[in-house]
Amino acid sequence: MSDRVKEILSWYGGENAGVLSNLARMLYQGKLGGTGRMVILPVDQGFEHGPARSFAPNPAGYDPRYHFQLALDAGCNAYAAPLGFLEAGAAEYAGRIPLILKLNNHDSLAPDGPNPVPSVTGSVKDALLLGCSAIGYTIYPGSAHFKSMYEDLRELTREAKSHGLAVVVWSYPRGTGVSKEGETAVDIAAYAAQIAAQLGAHVIKVKPPTAHIDGKEAKKVFESEGIPTATLADRVKHVVDSAFGGRRIVIFSGGAKGADEKVFEEVTGVRDGGGFGSIIGRNSFQRKHDEALTFLAKVMDIYSA
Amino acid sequence: MSDRVKEILSWYGGENAGVLSNLARMLYQGKLGGTGRMVILPVDQGFEHGPARSFAPNPAGYDPRYHFQLALDAGCNAYAAPLGFLEAGAAEYAGRIPLILKLNNHDSLAPDGPNPVPSVTGSVKDALLLGCSAIGYTIYPGSAHFKSMYEDLRELTREAKSHGLAVVVWSYPRGTGVSKEGETAVDIAAYAAQIAAQLGAHVIKVKPPTAHIDGKEAKKVFESEGIPTATLADRVKHVVDSAFGGRRIVIFSGGAKGADEKVFEEVTGVRDGGGFGSIIGRNSFQRKHDEALTFLAKVMDIYSA
Amino acid sequence: MSDRVKEILSWYGGENAGVLSNLARMLYQGKLGGTGRMVILPVDQGFEHGPARSFAPNPAGYDPRYHFQLALDAGCNAYAAPLGFLEAGAAEYAGRIPLILKLNNHDSLAPDGPNPVPSVTGSVKDALLLGCSAIGYTIYPGSAHFKSMYEDLRELTREAKSHGLAVVVWSYPRGTGVSKEGETAVDIAAYAAQIAAQLGAHVIKVKPPTAHIDGKEAKKVFESEGIPTATLADRVKHVVDSAFGGRRIVIFSGGAKGADEKVFEEVTGVRDGGGFGSIIGRNSFQRKHDEALTFLAKVMDIYSA
Amino acid sequence: MSDRVKEILSWYGGENAGVLSNLARMLYQGKLGGTGRMVILPVDQGFEHGPARSFAPNPAGYDPRYHFQLALDAGCNAYAAPLGFLEAGAAEYAGRIPLILKLNNHDSLAPDGPNPVPSVTGSVKDALLLGCSAIGYTIYPGSAHFKSMYEDLRELTREAKSHGLAVVVWSYPRGTGVSKEGETAVDIAAYAAQIAAQLGAHVIKVKPPTAHIDGKEAKKVFESEGIPTATLADRVKHVVDSAFGGRRIVIFSGGAKGADEKVFEEVTGVRDGGGFGSIIGRNSFQRKHDEALTFLAKVMDIYSA
Amino acid sequence: MSDRVKEILSWYGGENAGVLSNLARMLYQGKLGGTGRMVILPVDQGFEHGPARSFAPNPAGYDPRYHFQLALDAGCNAYAAPLGFLEAGAAEYAGRIPLILKLNNHDSLAPDGPNPVPSVTGSVKDALLLGCSAIGYTIYPGSAHFKSMYEDLRELTREAKSHGLAVVVWSYPRGTGVSKEGETAVDIAAYAAQIAAQLGAHVIKVKPPTAHIDGKEAKKVFESEGIPTATLADRVKHVVDSAFGGRRIVIFSGGAKGADEKVFEEVTGVRDGGGFGSIIGRNSFQRKHDEALTFLAKVMDIYSA
Repeated sequence: MSDRVKEILSWYGGENAGVLSNLARMLYQGKLGGTGRMVILPVDQGFEHGPARSFAPNPAGYDPRYHFQLALDAGCNAYAAPLGFLEAGAAEYAGRIPLILKLNNHDSLAPDGPNPVPSVTGSVKDALLLGCSAIGYTIYPGSAHFKSMYEDLRELTREAKSHGLAVVVWSYPRGTGVSKEGETAVDIAAYAAQIAAQLGAHVIKVKPPTAHIDGKEAKKVFESEGIPTATLADRVKHVVDSAFGGRRIVIFSGGAKGADEKVFEEVTGVRDGGGFGSIIGRNSFQRKHDEALTFLAKVMDIYSA
Repeated sequence: MSDRVKEILSWYGGENAGVLSNLARMLYQGKLGGTGRMVILPVDQGFEHGPARSFAPNPAGYDPRYHFQLALDAGCNAYAAPLGFLEAGAAEYAGRIPLILKLNNHDSLAPDGPNPVPSVTGSVKDALLLGCSAIGYTIYPGSAHFKSMYEDLRELTREAKSHGLAVVVWSYPRGTGVSKEGETAVDIAAYAAQIAAQLGAHVIKVKPPTAHIDGKEAKKVFESEGIPTATLADRVKHVVDSAFGGRRIVIFSGGAKGADEKVFEEVTGVRDGGGFGSIIGRNSFQRKHDEALTFLAKVMDIYSA
Repeated sequence: MSDRVKEILSWYGGENAGVLSNLARMLYQGKLGGTGRMVILPVDQGFEHGPARSFAPNPAGYDPRYHFQLALDAGCNAYAAPLGFLEAGAAEYAGRIPLILKLNNHDSLAPDGPNPVPSVTGSVKDALLLGCSAIGYTIYPGSAHFKSMYEDLRELTREAKSHGLAVVVWSYPRGTGVSKEGETAVDIAAYAAQIAAQLGAHVIKVKPPTAHIDGKEAKKVFESEGIPTATLADRVKHVVDSAFGGRRIVIFSGGAKGADEKVFEEVTGVRDGGGFGSIIGRNSFQRKHDEALTFLAKVMDIYSA
Repeated sequence: MSDRVKEILSWYGGENAGVLSNLARMLYQGKLGGTGRMVILPVDQGFEHGPARSFAPNPAGYDPRYHFQLALDAGCNAYAAPLGFLEAGAAEYAGRIPLILKLNNHDSLAPDGPNPVPSVTGSVKDALLLGCSAIGYTIYPGSAHFKSMYEDLRELTREAKSHGLAVVVWSYPRGTGVSKEGETAVDIAAYAAQIAAQLGAHVIKVKPPTAHIDGKEAKKVFESEGIPTATLADRVKHVVDSAFGGRRIVIFSGGAKGADEKVFEEVTGVRDGGGFGSIIGRNSFQRKHDEALTFLAKVMDIYSA
Repeated sequence: MSDRVKEILSWYGGENAGVLSNLARMLYQGKLGGTGRMVILPVDQGFEHGPARSFAPNPAGYDPRYHFQLALDAGCNAYAAPLGFLEAGAAEYAGRIPLILKLNNHDSLAPDGPNPVPSVTGSVKDALLLGCSAIGYTIYPGSAHFKSMYEDLRELTREAKSHGLAVVVWSYPRGTGVSKEGETAVDIAAYAAQIAAQLGAHVIKVKPPTAHIDGKEAKKVFESEGIPTATLADRVKHVVDSAFGGRRIVIFSGGAKGADEKVFEEVTGVRDGGGFGSIIGRNSFQRKHDEALTFLAKVMDIYSA
């Protein structure tokens, strides 16, 4: 058994063996299996942004099976998607890659303005019937609807753990409680990680933080205590510290499709700051299959280095 | 058996032995064990104020296990925290210190303006699985959302008692129903204690009251009946009287990090007024471990005197 | 934290923090607290044998409160009794000593002949309302009613663990499947310990085994593999090995009231063989309070040596 | 508040106020209200023995309302009957006398031979809808069906207490595990009281014990410990001791219709032995109303003396 | 993806993806992963035969963790054991090898004579909390208790499938409906496989069949239709045909510890007859670890050839 995986699992003392097994399944899977680092393929953009925006750049991606195969071929640790996408491929790909069922989702037609409120679109029962290792759930700290999101998550988390499933939380500050610049500010990204951890998440996904510090009170502390924020690695370190002193798995989003070098640089920063990995959707599935493999191989190489 | 503990437990006649046992566990624990006084360590600031503001002053506190150890080393009666923080240490510290699971929490990103509404972020089931002695819950009398808070508390309280758990209520007047000065006014602090007691709390936490009297009608009575409010001890006595004639355990918050002498003076006032103890978070965990022990030892000495 | 207690708790990886806390409460209580050894006071004889046979020798014991006080005064790790006896004292002794609610019991008026079948006389809910740390349950391997006993235990065990309670199993071979001599035979005592462990018990109570080997097939193995059975310590070692290689807590009954020296000798054998302690009922509560304290102190001294 | 009632209620520490209130209602009712003694009117003979055997001697008793009125007129503490009898009068007599719903009953047509097994013929819900203070339940220790009786009682008891109802248990040794003479033997009556108490009964009803000692092992103890059994008072004292050292309410049946003097003598014995009262059915309702009042007044006088 | 695994999974069309994933996990695990053959390590002998008979030959096996490690080191497809044995290692070995929780078990002390009736000793909930891929269950066709076994299995099977778990059935003819010789007769072994398949099993375990044909009617058909039974391969083919024309996974027990050559010969016969693999307990864990690895490697080599 990998000493690093063993160490990571030890942070979840008191969890049942089912939860630990499902965390372990993700940590042992793929090219990074056993290193304690993870690269996860998430494909919820069809729901979140619409099909053309998501799949037209690489039309193979209209077929849900494409993404299972991509995650497998690339050696990802897990594949995350909403109910329908998993239902359309889980039987065919049974047992070949850990799955994360995203239990809430939001579409861009929803007229909920600046305060997004996702719908719960799947259940723990669905996750079991699909053979998933974890449930996924998005919270928007700063949204006026924070309360319903946190409370739904609380119930789903308890139910998931009671059935031996792990819990992955996407924590994206957004809404009238946060300025646009604040959404990726280092203090708020760290706060978002802390909230997810306090809500019982096993794995937390946040965005790579900028050097901006949004909160007036927070700014004072960053200055008085001299918390370094100059490099991405510095800022990632603060976010990871904020997730229980590094004792929760924190991974970072790959963001919109951009210049590869920028992504690799970011991944290097995540790695150097002690981040546990990346969750890379559009940058993977919106390019041709071969290019995606080359791209993801490079990302994994950075984490293995 | 301590006569004082026996006396205190007698106030809760009709409660089942499970609830009494869990109250007793807290009353017998630590340096003040058996005196009927309590000092509790609460660490929910990571959720409430964000990680940097909470833990950067003493970075050891990013690790959830730090606070279990601090509460133990200092000889506190109990340790209170949200779900994630307890999950991250309860197995390792199993059976060593009574735990209070804070079942609702609020973050400062929430755009709920002057009327805060916490989210329910844990369950009675969680409290049992973590080996807790009590649930904790915050109400904001004066908030426009008072109804959902009181009603959620009612359900959680019944469920907790039916499973043998004690109930600790943080009662903080706040919202458009209360002026800023009124939040700590003696009449309103006393009212907050009364509301918590009426809602079935076994242990009530309020802020140390100022001499300000906020309510016009209340003011008349304070004057006509000559209720003393000159000293903190006077005001604490009024708050304790307001919690069922002193037959509920009322403890007082330690507030933000401040000059130690000011805190000790306040603790002396609480003690002299018949308060049952303090719940001291930031003033404890935001200083170095050794200094925290010295500080808390002094607080406990005052209560023991 | 005692290293030994920490080691023992590590055997129960995957259990929730509630279960671990309740095991820890028993392991930290009393004079043997922290040593990893336990002496438990069980008083179910009123139900099992009738009141006069149980309490007339020391009439103070008719009063249920006597036994709480005895367990406390003697420094026992826990006190175990049926529903009524606990209900009659749990509030008065709230939080002072870990309690084990014996969930099944049998009376000697029952005309069930050689195959005893206990009744389930309490519930997990009762245990929570009484503030218990564990449920207790008796199985009679070898009874024709084994199936209902094992299956009731399975359900109670799952329910107890789901509420954070520990599980103590009395495993007494008895019935038409076992000869009289076989009831205490070393192979059958070891088998009884194994069955209890396989059924999910955290703590197992068996009788001190004799050198008799009852099973023909077992006898062959004892001989071919040279399993030592000459001394009680040898036999206790085999029983402890049989409970998952020593990774479950196995304690031994003190038996009927007998010559003290014989008991001390037996306790010494249990200790030398690696047994975790004793559960001593009649030998404790059927003598005067002072004599009982002297007697139990001596037993605990042996375990501490 | 009567000091004696207060003392009696103190034995039930940990019970909820609903249960205590219902016990108190019975203890404060009628001529003996406040003395700690009770006389209860039970009328289940219609079910148990058939109507003619029960009511023909005093045909007014065919009408269920007769018994409510009798209990009231006589100043009894409570009236106990099966579902139908209570349904037929509870509304008309609403709030005038505490009611006990007998939840199991047995008819003499049942071909269950020497091992009677009563049927559960009512529910806790029925008891609430009828405004009852308690449920009643009969166990037959010594019956081959002991297990189903004890286990049904356990569930009903938990449910009753959770709804604030008291629990009255009729404990009648009967069946192939007990000889005819043993049914009223002092050792077995005491054992029956102990079993009911261990099962969680608040009030226990047994038959007045004879001087016969049925158990061989018990006999040895009665002799060696010199337990007095010469007078009925002696024997009642042993039975009361056996119900948790006198800390449970034990009342004694009045038996079949017999010479009044014999009954008064028996009642005197119960009183002198520390029994808490009588439950007198046939001897009350099978005589004319006026005679019944005179008879019951005499019984109550004895208890008041 | 292995074509053979894909083919095997196609037989279970209509099963949910959770069940398929768990079947796939077992089929992809270990040295035979992807071949469609399986070698499973079962260790229920501690419960079934007692600890000394099971573990004294290789005392390392008293420790439950030994068997997890053995199954892993040997490259087995799965490890099967009762509740206690899995609880004692599942957290430590989380996610490293598929687990099968044996939900019913029988001990040799049970006085159930020639018609064994196992007890249900675990639940589907337990299986989920332990991170299992499947439940296991034993039926004894021919036992007088067949009905309770089949009906319990039916309920557990439905519940398991509803939670995404696979179902493994041990089908052992035994009881007064079967002669001793009939227990392994080819017609009866085939019948046992058919019954398990009809009850909804995904994986079926039977004993290697002898050439004996037990049923008179069956014998006629074997002769008239010329079903070959001369070699073990012939007979295995008949058993596999009987499990839905080869469309269910049928594996064969390795039996008691015997001469290795005999085992290898038998395994060769199973392979040649189209059997899917072996489940080998005592022959594996009752020898030293190194020898067990050599032995199992040889078995797997035969299946790979």
